[in-house]
Amino acid sequence: MAGFCIDQRRRFEGKVWAVVQPHSVEAVQKTVRYCYEQQIPLTPQGGNTSMCGGATPSDSVAGLGIIVSLSKLNRVREVNLADNCITVEAGRVLQQVQQDAAAVGRMFPLSLASEGSCQIGGNIACNAGGVNVVRYGPMRDLVMGLEVVLPNGDLLSHLSPLHKNTTGFDVKHALIGSEGTLGIITAATLKLFAPARTHVTAWVGVDSIDHAVALLELTQQHFAERLSSFELISDFALELSSQHTQLSQPLSAPWHVLLELTDSTDNTLLPEQLGECLLGAGFENAVLAESEQQREQLWSLRENISDAQRHLGASIKHDIAMPIRSVASFVHACAPVLQAAYPNAKIVVFGHLGDGSLHYNVFMPDVLSNDVYQYEAGMNALVYEQVFAVGGTVAAEHGIGQLKTKWMDKMRSGTELALMLAIKKQLDPNCLFNQGKVLPD
Amino acid sequence: MAGFCIDQRRRFEGKVWAVVQPHSVEAVQKTVRYCYEQQIPLTPQGGNTSMCGGATPSDSVAGLGIIVSLSKLNRVREVNLADNCITVEAGRVLQQVQQDAAAVGRMFPLSLASEGSCQIGGNIACNAGGVNVVRYGPMRDLVMGLEVVLPNGDLLSHLSPLHKNTTGFDVKHALIGSEGTLGIITAATLKLFAPARTHVTAWVGVDSIDHAVALLELTQQHFAERLSSFELISDFALELSSQHTQLSQPLSAPWHVLLELTDSTDNTLLPEQLGECLLGAGFENAVLAESEQQREQLWSLRENISDAQRHLGASIKHDIAMPIRSVASFVHACAPVLQAAYPNAKIVVFGHLGDGSLHYNVFMPDVLSNDVYQYEAGMNALVYEQVFAVGGTVAAEHGIGQLKTKWMDKMRSGTELALMLAIKKQLDPNCLFNQGKVLPD
Ligand SMILES: Cc1cc2nc3c(=O)[nH]c(=O)nc-3n(C[C@H](O)[C@H](O)[C@H](O)COP(=O)(O)OP(=O)(O)OC[C@H]3O[C@@H](n4cnc5c(N)ncnc54)[C@H](O)[C@@H]3O)c2cc1C
Ligand SMILES: Cc1cc2nc3c(=O)[nH]c(=O)nc-3n(C[C@H](O)[C@H](O)[C@H](O)COP(=O)(O)OP(=O)(O)OC[C@H]3O[C@@H](n4cnc5c(N)ncnc54)[C@H](O)[C@@H]3O)c2cc1C
Repeated sequence: MAGFCIDQRRRFEGKVWAVVQPHSVEAVQKTVRYCYEQQIPLTPQGGNTSMCGGATPSDSVAGLGIIVSLSKLNRVREVNLADNCITVEAGRVLQQVQQDAAAVGRMFPLSLASEGSCQIGGNIACNAGGVNVVRYGPMRDLVMGLEVVLPNGDLLSHLSPLHKNTTGFDVKHALIGSEGTLGIITAATLKLFAPARTHVTAWVGVDSIDHAVALLELTQQHFAERLSSFELISDFALELSSQHTQLSQPLSAPWHVLLELTDSTDNTLLPEQLGECLLGAGFENAVLAESEQQREQLWSLRENISDAQRHLGASIKHDIAMPIRSVASFVHACAPVLQAAYPNAKIVVFGHLGDGSLHYNVFMPDVLSNDVYQYEAGMNALVYEQVFAVGGTVAAEHGIGQLKTKWMDKMRSGTELALMLAIKKQLDPNCLFNQGKVLPD
Repeated sequence: MAGFCIDQRRRFEGKVWAVVQPHSVEAVQKTVRYCYEQQIPLTPQGGNTSMCGGATPSDSVAGLGIIVSLSKLNRVREVNLADNCITVEAGRVLQQVQQDAAAVGRMFPLSLASEGSCQIGGNIACNAGGVNVVRYGPMRDLVMGLEVVLPNGDLLSHLSPLHKNTTGFDVKHALIGSEGTLGIITAATLKLFAPARTHVTAWVGVDSIDHAVALLELTQQHFAERLSSFELISDFALELSSQHTQLSQPLSAPWHVLLELTDSTDNTLLPEQLGECLLGAGFENAVLAESEQQREQLWSLRENISDAQRHLGASIKHDIAMPIRSVASFVHACAPVLQAAYPNAKIVVFGHLGDGSLHYNVFMPDVLSNDVYQYEAGMNALVYEQVFAVGGTVAAEHGIGQLKTKWMDKMRSGTELALMLAIKKQLDPNCLFNQGKVLPD
């Protein structure tokens, strides 16, 4: 059972007396009903890739509980091309669902680095984000219907795809993003999309983050939803990646943008249209990928930043997002504050500017992996203060789990927290589901 | 005050002792706090275009209450092109917001026949649908942030646009579609989009509804989000409209589809691609609009169905939606059931097949306008039974209001209704907001 009780970063370890792996929805209901009657705490678990201790029992669990792993509840229930959707069970791995979609000539757009092991149920529970949010939105936007076992064992079932429906307060959205505190998701109906047949990829040098934001506005106005990636990369991050990959830097500039347009048709007009649009607006320091190989090299420079930066030492990461318009002022305000408190710290900035979420990684040179967490609380506090100052969030896509409950009241008002508690109490009166997660004590 | 107390169809009339028209959020808060202290029931009102008695006080209001009209709270707060959004106050008329977007080179896609008078606050409160749902989704999908005065007078304010954010249960979505029962929306941040520069419009004859659904699948696979309209029209509906408009029928077939692709670029490839796609899949009975005038004529045939059918007499309408895949079986099952009970009834079927919502209008020849409602309860019951049989909804886009509360428990389980009541009780413990609406007694 050990693998279920500890998270992938080996930071959070919980104790349980059993791990249950139901094969059917009825078995989930039976397990949950038993827990309800016997007052046994439980933790729903998907692929166990949570970054915030969400999927392992927290220390605040009163007495020994169980983990309910959804891994064995993982079938495709049905494909429905008329409604452009697929119904899968919660334990199905994200990558499999991407493949299921491809097998019927469609595409499921959610994509994260953990896609080989995270599960649809976990993705919904966390409202996962990933690399395609600028075009397709987070997981919340991709869910048409849910099937959920509630803490009393009742089954809530709305898998039928309704494109229009307004019948009372939206229960589905209360469950999406609730991180296993309100019920166990057992199946979901997910939207499908047409796959891309055309890719146009550009690397553009810009003078400042504001300049990058101007480019974002321009491309969104001209190419609308075709804009599927818009990545911001600092000069320093590019340098690290270029050294690491031995690929030369495409151009030199203080800041870099990697942007990609995709199109479901064979759109041969697109490269020229993008070229003209860039030139016309004065973005002349730019490269368009002319071959699939060039495209891969540009993406390789972006994707290797995470590996490249490991040479700097261990780092404190931040799952932050903010209005796109405020990214520049956040970056300018945050660096001096951090460097005043930690003069040796090195900051690597890159991220999905197109959706306002940043990888803001702070390195302490010479500090070994396990030791770096001693700085976490202090650095978090400094960075988060700057995030709040621009109306941002410190739980952009990983959720709250047990790591961030104490930040909830900086982002949600007392009235909102009271409403969340009322919802929790109504569905889980004995607080058996994921104790110590999401809601502050 | 009379105009505020009666709905636009003159079906629902309520009594109040005052209509308040606040000019500021503070004035809304002051009004709401006073009502909270004095236990005065209140009804939020936008453009008063509700089709289900949502915006006028119901008979179940205990004692005399007030109407809070948002009409004077109607400014644009700000345009933010970096985040592709606009923040407006709730009383702003939908059409004005469409114009605000156009003025900055963007587009706000929500579009309904009532757009000249309905308001953003009302649209959010009802989760309005309209003609662009196949591409852009309903109002719920267009809201990035909300500002709401809760029943105790507290202000909930999340107008800052966050493209990624998962911090506890989603309060915003509980308020969207709550039809004024949980608070007064005072402002919202709305998504903007690039306007269309290319339109390609086709009229396609099909043998059956299933054949139309196959065409929908085909166009969605090839043209993805470019598909912005996909309308189904019965032969009978077309005949009526053709007579009424004096426009000739584009082609003859048992069922007709009017579909439109739109593109934000000057996409000169699109007409030929659509033509090839149709021919390649055997949809040969088809016409592509070759000029703007032809396009307008095709749309005119669709848009005049409502007027054309008035010659048949008064009608009972149904705000229904269902899985697209089930539309054919619903249509085939429903007609004989209705005609058995009402042998004179004539049924006109058309609607947005692309989002599964139908205009299902039942006419009683020779029955004058005001008298037709005597058949409503009986016909509704027959039609709704068939809708429920295919997993559909009887409140697709107009909401529940006071007209449909008794149907709620056919669409929502006891557990869900209990959760809704708990949410209601938490936010509005004295049940002052919109008594007798949405939730069943
Ligand atoms: C290398 C790496 C990269 C990552 N990149 C991203 C990224 O780009 N974007 C992003 O959003 N996240 C990312 N993550 C975080 C993580 O992968 C996501 O949060 C993912 O959605 C979690 O899915 P899971 O199945 O592993 O859930 P778990 O980790 O098992 O559980 C997560 C939470 O959901 C609950 N839960 C799980 N399954 C269910 C269910 N069926 N019903 C109810 N509750 C359930 C758990 O109780 C827990 O609270 C990354 C993680 C790693 C390790
Ligand atoms: C000719 C016609 C065509 C229509 N076509 C469509 C259509 O295609 N699609 C569609 O979805 N609807 C349609 N409708 C219905 C109606 O226009 C929509 O429901 C619209 O969204 C209501 O907006 P409103 O401002 O008029 O709201 P109102 O009618 O004033 O109110 C509707 C509900 O919202 C509440 N409310 C209003 N403002 C607020 C606020 N600021 N805060 C909290 N609660 C509030 C009210 O209490 C009420 O419950 C149509 C109506 C007409 C008359």
